[in-house]
Parts: sequence; C-alpha cells; structure tokens
Amino acid sequence: MFKIRSLVTALVLAGSVSGAYAWEALPTKAPEPADNPTTAEKVALGQMLYHDPRLSSTGTVSCASCHNTMLGGEDNRPNSMGVNAQTGGRSAPTVWNAAFNKVQFWDGRAASLEEQAAGPVANPIEMGMKDWDAVVARLKAIEGYHEAFTKVFGENSISQENVTKAIAAYERTLITPNSPYDKYVNGDKSALTEQQVRGMNKMAELGCTACHSGPAFNGAGTYQKFPVNSNGYFEAQYKFKRDKGRAEVTNNPEDEHMWKVPTLRNIALTAPYFHNGSVSTLEKAVKVMGKLQLDKDLPDEDIEDIVAFLNGLTGQFPKQSMPILPSTPGRLAK
Amino acid sequence: MFKIRSLVTALVLAGSVSGAYAWEALPTKAPEPADNPTTAEKVALGQMLYHDPRLSSTGTVSCASCHNTMLGGEDNRPNSMGVNAQTGGRSAPTVWNAAFNKVQFWDGRAASLEEQAAGPVANPIEMGMKDWDAVVARLKAIEGYHEAFTKVFGENSISQENVTKAIAAYERTLITPNSPYDKYVNGDKSALTEQQVRGMNKMAELGCTACHSGPAFNGAGTYQKFPVNSNGYFEAQYKFKRDKGRAEVTNNPEDEHMWKVPTLRNIALTAPYFHNGSVSTLEKAVKVMGKLQLDKDLPDEDIEDIVAFLNGLTGQFPKQSMPILPSTPGRLAK
Repeated sequence: MFKIRSLVTALVLAGSVSGAYAWEALPTKAPEPADNPTTAEKVALGQMLYHDPRLSSTGTVSCASCHNTMLGGEDNRPNSMGVNAQTGGRSAPTVWNAAFNKVQFWDGRAASLEEQAAGPVANPIEMGMKDWDAVVARLKAIEGYHEAFTKVFGENSISQENVTKAIAAYERTLITPNSPYDKYVNGDKSALTEQQVRGMNKMAELGCTACHSGPAFNGAGTYQKFPVNSNGYFEAQYKFKRDKGRAEVTNNPEDEHMWKVPTLRNIALTAPYFHNGSVSTLEKAVKVMGKLQLDKDLPDEDIEDIVAFLNGLTGQFPKQSMPILPSTPGRLAK
Repeated sequence: MFKIRSLVTALVLAGSVSGAYAWEALPTKAPEPADNPTTAEKVALGQMLYHDPRLSSTGTVSCASCHNTMLGGEDNRPNSMGVNAQTGGRSAPTVWNAAFNKVQFWDGRAASLEEQAAGPVANPIEMGMKDWDAVVARLKAIEGYHEAFTKVFGENSISQENVTKAIAAYERTLITPNSPYDKYVNGDKSALTEQQVRGMNKMAELGCTACHSGPAFNGAGTYQKFPVNSNGYFEAQYKFKRDKGRAEVTNNPEDEHMWKVPTLRNIALTAPYFHNGSVSTLEKAVKVMGKLQLDKDLPDEDIEDIVAFLNGLTGQFPKQSMPILPSTPGRLAK
C-alpha cells in the first residue's frame, strides 16, 4: 500500500506540471500472438462462435449475451446473467479494446484472450457446458462448422484450442478508435470541448492516469488495489470489499482487493460501474474513485469536467456484418 | 373434421395429376399495411429494437433471443427460454418470412406483425416487462433512441405503437428468396436434384400442399387441425394433444387442436419440430405428418425424397449489418 500511495503521489506531482503526461491515441490494430495470427477467415469464424448461443448448455447464452457487441461490449447489468438465470458477483468487463489488456478477467486470471475465451463456456454459472469435450461434440454435430473450421485450420480441426483461437482473433478486431480524445491527441484541437480539456488535465493532475495509463487507460497490465482507503459510508453503500479480487484466485493475502486496472475507453456506455456493478452513474464513480483512491473529496466542478472528458473516450464502433450461423440438425447434444 | 378430410382427399386427387399443383416462388417483397409503410430508417430502428435485450425485465432477452436472425429465425430449442429461465410449452416459430403469414403465433392470436410484436414484451414468461408503459419509460431513458425515433416518427414519438411498427417493418425485410426450389420454379431445372423433384411431386400427390400451400408453404392463412388422426403411439411419444392450440385462445371447442399452418421455408434449419418442439428430425417429422394427417405409413423412400425436397426450401439470407445500440445511462429502470 505504501508503494501505491507513493506512486500516486509521485504522479500527482508529475501531472501537476501541465502537459507532462504523455497522452496516447488508441492504435487501430491490436498486438497478436505469434501462434495465432489474425486472418479475415479466422475472424469471421470467431465472430460466428462468439455469437453462437449453442456454446451454452441451454443454447441461450453466447459470449455476446454478456459482452454485447451491439452495446458497449457488456450488458449494462450490475452482474451478468448466465444459463438458468444464474448471476455471479462481478460485472462483465467490456470486450471492446480488451485486446489491449495485458491480462483478462477482473482478477487477471487469464494471460491472453485465448485463455480467457476458454473460461466462461464451462463455468456452471456462465455458459454451463459440462466441459470442453461437450462443446467440441456439439460443434462437430453442426455440419456448417466443419466447413468453416476446415477453411481456417484444416480438416478435422474443431477443438478447444481452435475455438478459443478464432474467438480471440475476432476479439482483436473489436477496437474503437477515433474518439474525440483520439482526434484531439492526433492534432484536432476542436475535437474536445474546453470543459473536456479541463477534465483531461485534471485526470493527470489528480493522478487518475497513474493507474489508468496508456492508450487504453488500462495501466500497463499491473494490478492495483481498490479501494486504497477505507470509507465506511461507501463500503456500506457499495460493498466493494466483499470480493477479494485477485486473492480469490491466488489465495495470497497480498493480493486482497487487487484488481486489473479496467479500461476507461467507452466508459460512458458501460454503466453500472466497478467490479461489482454497484455504482449507477459515471458522476458517482468519479466521486468514489476520488475518495477511495486519492483520498480527496472532489468538488462537483471537477467531477463534471472529468465526466465530460470520459464521454470523449467513446470511440467509433466498426461496422460489422451479422454472422449467419449454421443450423443444428435435430436437438442440441447435451 | 369431415371438411378437412374431404379437402385433403380432393387435393390428393388433384395432385395426382402430375404438375397440377401451382408451385410458386417466394416474393422478394412482403405486403405492407397502409398505415405502416416500410422505410429504410424505420427498418433500421426496428432492427435495433428487435435486437435490444433491454426490452426485457432482466435486460437479457431480446426478440432475437428466441427468434434468432443469425440462425433459422428461431432458437433450435424445443421451447424457448424467457427471462429468469422460464419456458413455455411451445416452440418459437421462425421470424424469417413471417411477413407472409396471414396471422401470427401458433394459435394465430395476432392478426399482424405489429400486433404480434406487442405480445412477448409484457408476457411474464417471455420478456417479463411489467407493461408497455415500463418499456416506453425504459426506452425514453436512452438518449440515442430519442434521436432514432425522431428521425422515423417525429419528435417525442417513443410509444408502444411506434415500437411495434418499427419492429414489424424490420420483420417485413426478413425474407429468404432464391432457395433451390425458387430457382427451379423460376426455370433453372438444375437447381433441384432428381430426388428433390421426386420429393416435390410427392408433396403434391400425397396432399401435403393442401395445407402447406402458397409460396411460403404456409397455407392461405387458414387454420388446420393437428393431429387429424388419433395415434396412441405417437401421442405417448410426442404429447401433441396436451396443447389445445387455437382453443386455448378462443375457448371454442371447435378450435381444439387447430393451428396456424407453419411455413416450410427453411424448415431444415429449425429443428426440433411441431408446436411443442417434440420431434428432433425432419425425417421423423415427415413420418409423423404422413401418419397423423394423411393416415399413411409413408415408405422410407418417400420420406427421404420429401426431406431432400424440404432441404431445397432453404433460401438465401440477406446480408445484415449489426445494429449499434445506444447505451443506458446508469441502471435500467424497472
């Protein structure tokens, strides 16, 4: 905790030198792993699988159900609803620009998009398939998938590895560049309003960008503690500490309440906020962050300016065509 | 019942004169009501609403959840799953070419697509909204919808009437022409295989087209009894008679087990079959129809030929772009 506080302090000082923070526009291409190059056919297959509800036990929940590509990449719910109306304790992170996260899931338990894609399918409260063998068997029963996989990975290639590779390749195309912020950083000084520029500078001055750094405002893949400060009022209202974050995975007390820094890209579209979706609006979220992370009661004016800036992080969503999914002959296999 | 049987007999006789049945290709445009002309902007709005899960109480079930436009227009489930994992007793009819049905729902209880669209939203086991006022309030809270409705219907125009008009206008574009059958009827005699042509002629000869008539193979908007014949074996297996069909709406004993004739278009994509989704494959469905409607034990060869033909009714799905839905500011209103 000492380290975090001193880092924040250092960056607050650094940020107070106006213009010291190196603002970056969002790249239009995401980095891709050597063993899973992004190709148009793989992306098309990944888009099909991502939107196919038959990857869930009931045939009703697809990746897109919780990470909705027609919305801000999630579901606007406090926490997502998996098969048989089950809910967990966490709010779905957006899939938009997830390719720029160094780790995936709120607790960072997946090191890549490929690894992440393997998780929800067999999670009993998410997509509820018995295991990956069941997923593969179900896909193998759908003739159209044989053709699609053959085109991308060769014959008889329906496997967990290739399903997750295709989904990850698709997700690497889900990038939202050209937000007003990006245009501003790229030289169009009229792209942000005066208020938004004030909010932008306050983000750096206050130290928000110490953690929400980089072009995706998601840090450099490090974990940060949340909440840093204790506050009985906010805790009673929002129950942030019920979930121990990364420690739930590592069982290491040092990881208690440590979280992957979430992106601020398209944040205006992804209410409600925080790991447990407990905060309804961006105004309240900024107020909470000021108090719990920076130990500051931010004046309303600062909150309004920062919210105005955050609205400038809404990017352009790529035009996508709707996938056409091959049909199931007969009943879905269990 | 006497009337139906004699009609079937008459058509069996008519059909046995080869070529007597007037085969028709699917129109590429659906009829539209005078008070709801189809316009590009209305269709775009309708597509958004159709795919928006926030039209359900949990924010997880859209029209497309059960009538999936990426699949055969339904969900490949025996019966659909609404909010909170509730299921009813009926199988979702396909939305593809629904514009050519004279009435909607299995029991025909809606006289138009507009009327149909009003139903599921406030049905407690489907989309579960309290009432249409709640739907309208929720949409009014989404700024982007104000703009979209204004473009189509003028200012302050978010209402039940306009939501259902937009959805119906979109549905009128969900047409799948150019199936092998359509190409064949339009003169391309190589579009169907010899087996498919045999199956096609058997459909007319046996009397299938007595009810499944017209370009959409969905009758002329009349209701038909199913099952016509009693069969203990099939009834024990498939429980067709548990549901009284149109009589559940009219309470008229004459309507017992009367059903809207479902389209056969894209039938190869919409397993499992019948009003209760109890039959897994098209082969079994044809066998059941032969026995229960025509009182015939169809030989396997006939079944195979007819199934081959039915596969020729799979049309071309229009390329659609994925709608981009406006976001919810804060929590969804109840």
